[in-house]
Amino acid sequence: MDARELAVDAEYRVAIEAGDDWRGAIEAVAADEGVAAAWFTGVGTVRDADVWYYDPAADEHRAVQFDEPLSVATCTGDVSVTDGDPVARPYAVLTRPSGQAVGGYLNAAEAVEGTVHLRAFEEAFDRRADP
Amino acid sequence: MDARELAVDAEYRVAIEAGDDWRGAIEAVAADEGVAAAWFTGVGTVRDADVWYYDPAADEHRAVQFDEPLSVATCTGDVSVTDGDPVARPYAVLTRPSGQAVGGYLNAAEAVEGTVHLRAFEEAFDRRADP
Amino acid sequence: MDARELAVDAEYRVAIEAGDDWRGAIEAVAADEGVAAAWFTGVGTVRDADVWYYDPAADEHRAVQFDEPLSVATCTGDVSVTDGDPVARPYAVLTRPSGQAVGGYLNAAEAVEGTVHLRAFEEAFDRRADP
Repeated sequence: MDARELAVDAEYRVAIEAGDDWRGAIEAVAADEGVAAAWFTGVGTVRDADVWYYDPAADEHRAVQFDEPLSVATCTGDVSVTDGDPVARPYAVLTRPSGQAVGGYLNAAEAVEGTVHLRAFEEAFDRRADP
Repeated sequence: MDARELAVDAEYRVAIEAGDDWRGAIEAVAADEGVAAAWFTGVGTVRDADVWYYDPAADEHRAVQFDEPLSVATCTGDVSVTDGDPVARPYAVLTRPSGQAVGGYLNAAEAVEGTVHLRAFEEAFDRRADP
Repeated sequence: MDARELAVDAEYRVAIEAGDDWRGAIEAVAADEGVAAAWFTGVGTVRDADVWYYDPAADEHRAVQFDEPLSVATCTGDVSVTDGDPVARPYAVLTRPSGQAVGGYLNAAEAVEGTVHLRAFEEAFDRRADP
């Protein structure tokens, strides 16, 4: 393990709006606000979800698609910069009308609404912590 | 999407106690401490749970009741003010002895114990971000 | 319920590395950095997981073992000190390739990789809030 101390640059409340791509909205805020490194948590509702699972044995991602409205019971992740652009890495737990929970890495989802609390840091994140 | 920068007013560790309503305890702390806007995450144990799912097609909430003890594996949400009183909007992922996870908007739950970390902001939240 | 105001001492990004015990890595950072009280959230991947469920009726923990790779869709908890050593209390929601979610108190797990955002406070946490 390894730890780096961080200095907070700014803190934001992000409103994700109907039709936004969930991950894209976070990245758009980061680009607009000049955020190169951040940590976030969020909640809301999406219409569908493209969820990825990282298989460590095969070292590859597997996608599963949920074509249904889902509550975002929690979304946690970070923002770092790749090739000059902010990239968000959101994980989420999504729930159905029955309460059943599914989740993983939330690669894409069309938002109904959402609220994300984002803390931006002065230090860029290195690749070692963003595999 | 839309983003607002926030200034932190204070940060609290909330101990939710046996018999407290989970959401009510967060709102009581907000009222006692004069908190009009906050973001929180938490964990703990509840004896039962009234979980709501927001159905975007019908624009209504559907309730599902879990009459059983559940771990609160995570709880995420915000506090804003409606008609002069602080209102908490907690989402939670709840787990059973088998590990099975359920969740959604945690409208009510009788707490066994819980810990919530709450960050209070100077700015009130607008309705647009709290549908 | 009860609330205590906290003062932040420092904020860290923790990189959990392949082979680390998830909980042990957080505790090792706390010990190295002299952290006696903290709140954290995190995400990542583990190879297996020893998940505990607290049964309030029997006042005992029940363990369930997941011998499979799982995404850590969210991990939330705190650090306090017991008998002079920092102890982390992580709850997690873990997901399978199908997206199915399980979770509870994450007593132990072999990490593949992980990122934990940890906020350390000046005040020690009392036992009442750490049952």
